[in-house]
Formats: sequence, structure tokens, C-alpha cells
Amino acid sequence: MVHLTALMLDTRLQELRAALEKNDLAGALAILQMLQPPDQADLLDELEPADQITLLPALQPAESADILEEMDDDRAAELVAALPTAAVVRIIDEMEPDEAADLLGDLEPAQARQVLAKLEDAKELRPLLLHADDSAGGLMTPEFLALRRRTSTADALDAIRAWQPKSDTLSDLFVIDGDGRLCGVVSMRQLIIAPPEALMIDIMDPDPVWVSVGTDQEACAQLMSHYSLLVLPVVNAAHELVGVITIDDVVDVLEAEATEDIQRLGGAEPLKRPYLDTPVLNIARKRISWLLLLFVTESLTGSVLRFFESELQAVVALSFFIPLLIGTGGNAGSQTTSTIIRALAVGDVRKRDALAAFWHELRVGLLLAAVMAVIAYGRALLWGTTPDLALAVAFSILAIIIWANSLGALLPLGAVALKIDPTVVSGPAMSTLVDATGLFIYFTIARLIIGL
Amino acid sequence: MVHLTALMLDTRLQELRAALEKNDLAGALAILQMLQPPDQADLLDELEPADQITLLPALQPAESADILEEMDDDRAAELVAALPTAAVVRIIDEMEPDEAADLLGDLEPAQARQVLAKLEDAKELRPLLLHADDSAGGLMTPEFLALRRRTSTADALDAIRAWQPKSDTLSDLFVIDGDGRLCGVVSMRQLIIAPPEALMIDIMDPDPVWVSVGTDQEACAQLMSHYSLLVLPVVNAAHELVGVITIDDVVDVLEAEATEDIQRLGGAEPLKRPYLDTPVLNIARKRISWLLLLFVTESLTGSVLRFFESELQAVVALSFFIPLLIGTGGNAGSQTTSTIIRALAVGDVRKRDALAAFWHELRVGLLLAAVMAVIAYGRALLWGTTPDLALAVAFSILAIIIWANSLGALLPLGAVALKIDPTVVSGPAMSTLVDATGLFIYFTIARLIIGL
Repeated sequence: MVHLTALMLDTRLQELRAALEKNDLAGALAILQMLQPPDQADLLDELEPADQITLLPALQPAESADILEEMDDDRAAELVAALPTAAVVRIIDEMEPDEAADLLGDLEPAQARQVLAKLEDAKELRPLLLHADDSAGGLMTPEFLALRRRTSTADALDAIRAWQPKSDTLSDLFVIDGDGRLCGVVSMRQLIIAPPEALMIDIMDPDPVWVSVGTDQEACAQLMSHYSLLVLPVVNAAHELVGVITIDDVVDVLEAEATEDIQRLGGAEPLKRPYLDTPVLNIARKRISWLLLLFVTESLTGSVLRFFESELQAVVALSFFIPLLIGTGGNAGSQTTSTIIRALAVGDVRKRDALAAFWHELRVGLLLAAVMAVIAYGRALLWGTTPDLALAVAFSILAIIIWANSLGALLPLGAVALKIDPTVVSGPAMSTLVDATGLFIYFTIARLIIGL
Repeated sequence: MVHLTALMLDTRLQELRAALEKNDLAGALAILQMLQPPDQADLLDELEPADQITLLPALQPAESADILEEMDDDRAAELVAALPTAAVVRIIDEMEPDEAADLLGDLEPAQARQVLAKLEDAKELRPLLLHADDSAGGLMTPEFLALRRRTSTADALDAIRAWQPKSDTLSDLFVIDGDGRLCGVVSMRQLIIAPPEALMIDIMDPDPVWVSVGTDQEACAQLMSHYSLLVLPVVNAAHELVGVITIDDVVDVLEAEATEDIQRLGGAEPLKRPYLDTPVLNIARKRISWLLLLFVTESLTGSVLRFFESELQAVVALSFFIPLLIGTGGNAGSQTTSTIIRALAVGDVRKRDALAAFWHELRVGLLLAAVMAVIAYGRALLWGTTPDLALAVAFSILAIIIWANSLGALLPLGAVALKIDPTVVSGPAMSTLVDATGLFIYFTIARLIIGL
């Protein structure tokens, strides 16, 4: 099997479309079968729904299952919704249980019930349907091989030989006691290196890292990344081993969480599907609420300006510096929030570091403010502004940057203290807050210095 | 060994500090040795340099090596720089070669040369020092077990038993031909399941996914994530297998790349070290260049306002809407860029999708602009603005949002086409560009409608 560059993917897509146009189903299947499932999913994604519905059930159920696992969740659910139940049952029976449970959860309840009633693995799947998609329980697969403490290495290797897992991940095996409780972990390497008669209890690490079914998926991902784990065991309230989370699922979680954070920092609610697959109306809906909220907040700038109307009328030149001052404040604030929010997300700044982080940011703000004030003073004079007004501009930028940096640090740190997702303090939210307050600072300083 | 919550980490840290204050080195070591290397590194990170220098060489070289591998690169280099060469040599000899090479690269050249001259594994390390840190060659470890095509399963398992790798990752093994060229991959599971006499050539997948030494680390990470690989083979120009990249290194790369993108999107150059470890002066330096560049660009707003000075003098109320209009435009633009840039980073939008993405975003812009124009019209009237000016505000917001969304899509897509990192189009850069151009749109429309 070959892995594809974007160019090769295009060529295959053209071949596939040509075969489908000639109604050459065998030819189309042959093209698909040369590829690996992630690329098969990418190709299928580019086809018309009618062609997808023709191709998928024509493949072996195991092949179709692999493709569905690689497809975007919503796309997979849409495709499956259009297939006959019998075909769906055959395919889902071949999927990894965690992926199958996710897919069932995305189907219409009526179809999901129909399919579940006919599945071979239904008993294994039902408990998975109870867990939230974004918890350890929703991320785990219940398909694992648990060894007993008195099992010998030779018997363990035999058990692995006899076991036919759907998944290929087998780097660590877990050891349970008579009640099914997690009590150790053995790496595949230890199994192979140890003498055949060695018992699990002698070679296992008796204190594996674990999570419970309700643990948030982001916490699972950070734990696996922190301890460089390939498999993470999941236990229930009785400490019984009920599933395992594999690293490939976690890589997807980390990527999805970073995407959400970036979209939120840009001032929009995260999209649930890839950008081009999200209808225009949905994207607009994800943005309009923030845009409106910020618009209302930004209206405050109008009130501030009306409040200082007489000053503006007296010195029109005051208005020339409005966008420059509040824009620079917004930029400084946005630099700060994005840095602090990411530091919080990756654990570089923890709750107890809040004060240290604020102090750090305040000093950065002082430094930047001092430099920018000198430059702003020079720039204003170059424009032929009166020395008084130039001085007011310089002091305003000094105060606004210090204010923006303090606010940019305080708001996300405060959000975390109140257990709110700090990404609500997006770049646009920061600029908007700094705009109204920045204007107030500017006019107050101008009034004092120019003596309006 | 135990994995720690933040609270437990704090308790251990207090115990550790207490032991060190009493000069109880054995006690301090005992506390450290209860923990896993990632937590040991976290604890050590919190101590004074003098204590770090006492503790690290007092541990077994293999333990110290594990800790250094988990520490932040620059912190590890600083610590090692303060240790005697003999101790450094003992520790580095126990590190994984890819980590050792990274560390040597971060030391002063004189110290690096001294250490390298005394290392046992110097021959293995030297080639690694030639590769860029952020390429496959810099990420890989040269420590792998390559099997030959005619090796039997039984012999392969014996070879694994005889091999004592420093790393624990052993999920896939690669098969090479007589010239050392990569020709297949065998999973550990296949090795265990296959009959002892089966040959590698019969059970291997003859077409593994691979990268060459010069491949960018982000591309390696995306490939491993796309194909759910735990190990990725690295080959040189002659297709000889020269190293392997493991998934735990890639998880770190994905996280670091997302951090860089987020900091850039906030309008700052990325920090090389964790936030609180970066001196205030360095953070300020990473931000001042963008802040200045945006300041100069934002100065254009002043020129636009001067150009329309007579209109401003005639209708002071015009100025009340300035921050509202350009702020909303900046927000809409920032929503767009962050979404498009992330979609580009994760491959949801590819180069060839540029036109589709632009068309998608243009329609989103039209929709948002229409809604916001109606609301802005109502808001302006409520403020007691003249109907003419309210109409001018409504049309301006319509034009500015469509303009901001188009620009927010075009700039990152254009950057990619020109092979520039699209994150240069940060949120602040977008707002700044929209500010000056938005003002021009506003005054032009106002002049037409109000007839100034």
C-alpha cells in the first residue's frame, strides 16, 4: 500500500471518477483498494453522495469499517444513514468498538436502535453509548487483553497469539486481580525479554497511570503526553479495568482541542466539522453572536466620544489619534491574552502561578509602553501636532498599553480561577474592551494636559 | 511509581525543599526516586540552580538521563553547563541518542566538543548533530533494530530479547535489504502471531510509510497522525534506513507547533521557552517588532482622518462611529483569518481549495454584513443620529464586513500560495489593515450619502 502526496491523491481521484462515469465498479474498487484507509476516506470524501453509497457497501465490510473510522464523524453518519440496515450492521460489526459507539451516537435514534438490535457486539457497545464523547469513557475501546497476576510470560504470549484484536495497538498490556481491578502494567518488550516462566506479578509495574471513565478527554491527552504513554487504562468507580485509550485517538484530541482554541481566540464559536464542509449559514451562526456582543460593547466607544463631544469640537486633531491609540492598545492586549491562554492550556502557567504571571506581564507591559510612548511622541510631532497634544498622545499610549497588558493577563487568569474556559477572552474581545476604556483614558489625559 | 496531581506535586516539592534545607541529600533523593521522570523533571525545575546541581549527579546516570530528557531543552542545557564534564559524559551516555544530540546542540561549542570526545556513543551521535532540530533527521533516534528479509520470526524475537534499547517503543520493526535499504515493516503483533519459521519477507508489509532526513517535523507529525503510526522510519538519499521517529516525540511537536501558531495569531513572535521561564526583556523583544510595525501601519488611519478633516469638522457626529465601525470590521476579519489559518494548518483547506475557501468566506461575509447593517442602522437611529448618517453607518458596516472577510480569507490563502507562513496574518495585523481601509470606506460612503 502506498501513501499519497496531494498530487497523487488528485490523480487517483480523477481515475476513480473516470471509472465511476463508465460504471466500471470493479475498476473503481481496484483503485480504492490500492490505498490505505486514511487516503481511501479522503478520496471517498471528494465523491458525490450517490457514488459513496454505491462504493462503500461493495467493499469488504472490514475495509468499509476502516474507511468509516477515518472519515469525519458527521460525514460518516450521513453516509451510513443512506445505507440499508443490513449493510450497516455488517460494517459496524467490523469497526473498533469506540469508533462504532461514536458512529451509533451520531445516527438518528431510530436507525441506531435498529442497527444495535442486530449487532453481534451489541453487548460490548451498549456501555460505551452511556459515556460522553469527550470523556475517557467515550474515547476508550473496551477491547483489551487483561492478564492475571499469576499468568506466566509464555501463557501471556499464547493468549496474545490466540487473541485477534481489531486494533493493532498492543504496546502495553494490563494486569488485573480476581475482581477485575487494575493492578499493573507490562510492556510488550518486557513480555518478550522475560523468561517464559516469569509471572506477571514479578515483571509488571504495579502502579500504572490510569484515569476513570468520567475524566475529560483533554486531561487524558495531557496525561498521555506528559508520561509518553501509548496506552492509558480506564477504570470505573470500583477500579475495575473497563477500557483502554490509545495514543492515536489522543493525537486527534490534541489537534481538535488546539483547533477549538484557535477559533475561539479569533472570536468565533468553534466549528464542529472541517471548514469547507460546514455550510455557510452554520459558519455565520457560529460568528454572529460574538460579533453582536462585541458590537454592543463597542457601542460604548460612541458614548465615550459623545461624552467628550465639546473637546472633540474644540480640537478636531484629537480624533486623528483615536484609531491609532485604541488600535495599539488592542494589539498589545491581544498579544498578551493569546500568550497567557496558550500557557494555561499547555500547563506552563498553572492556577497557583496566577500572581507570578500577572507580575511578569505587568513588567512586559511597562517596557513596551515606555518604548511605544517615546515613538508615539516623535510620530505626533512629525505630523505637525502641537507639543501639548503630542505629550497627551504619548502619555495615553503609555497608560493604554499598561492597562491592555494587565487586562489581557487578568481576564484569562480570572476566568480559570472561576472555572470558565479562558478562551472566551478572545483577541477581538480584548480589542473591544480596550477600545472603550482606552478612549476614556485618552480624553481624560488630553483634558488634563491640554487643559480643555 | 505514582503519577501526580498538581496538589501532590506541591506536597512533594515542600518535602523535597525541607530535606534539602536540612542537607538531607539521601532523603531528597528518596523523594525524587518515588516519582516518574516527567514529575521528577517538574520538581527539579522548581528548585534553585544550586540544588539542581547537587541533586542531579547524585542520582544514577540513567535516572539523571531520564530527567534531562523530560526537561525543557534550554533548562536542561543550562543545568548541564554547570556540571563537571565527567558527570555530563556519564549522563549523556545513558540518554536516547536523539535527545542527547539535541542537548549537545544546545551546549556551548567548547563544552559540547569536550563531552563528545569522551562519549561512548559519539559515533552514533555525530551524524545526528548535522540535522536541523526541526527536521526528521533531528527528531529521529538512530537506535533501532532492523531485521533482514530472510530472518525468521523465532530469530527476530531472539534478536529483540538480545537487544537492550534505551527507548521502550517497540511496536513496529523495520526490514532492510542487503544494502541497508528500507524494504518493509512488521508489527510486533504480527511477529508474535506468526509461526516461528515464517520469514520477514512473507509477513512484512512491503510498502511502509517513510520520510527522508530533511522532511520538516510538522510534515512528519501530520503523516503519523494521518496514518495512526507509532513509529515512522527515516531514510537517507540512498533509501537506507538511518533512524526512526516515535509518536511521543511527535505529540510534543504537534503541541509546540500549535503554541507557535497561537502566539503568532495573537500578533507576537513565538517564545522559545515556557512563558514564566522567559525573561521579561525577551518577551518584550518578541512583541515590540510587531507592535511597531502595526503602529506604523495604524498611522495611516491618522492620514485618512486628516484627509477628511473638513467633513469631520462639519459633522462631529461622524467621529462617534469611527471605533464602532473599524472595531467590528477588525473583529470580523479576525474571525475569518483564525478559522482559515487553522483550516490550512490541519489540512482541511489545501492550496487547490483556495478558490472554494474564498467563495465560502465571501458568502459568510455577505450574510454577516447584511445582519449587522440592519442592527447598526437601528442602533444609530436609537442614538438620535440623523437618518442620513444612520444610513451611511449601515452601508459602511455592510461594505467593511464584506471587505474584512474577503481580506481575512485572501491574505492567508495568498501567503500559502507564496510559500509564506500564513500566521503572519495575525488578528492584530487584520484589525490594523481593516482600520485604515475601513475609515476610507466609511468617509467615502458618508460623503456620498450625506453629500458633504
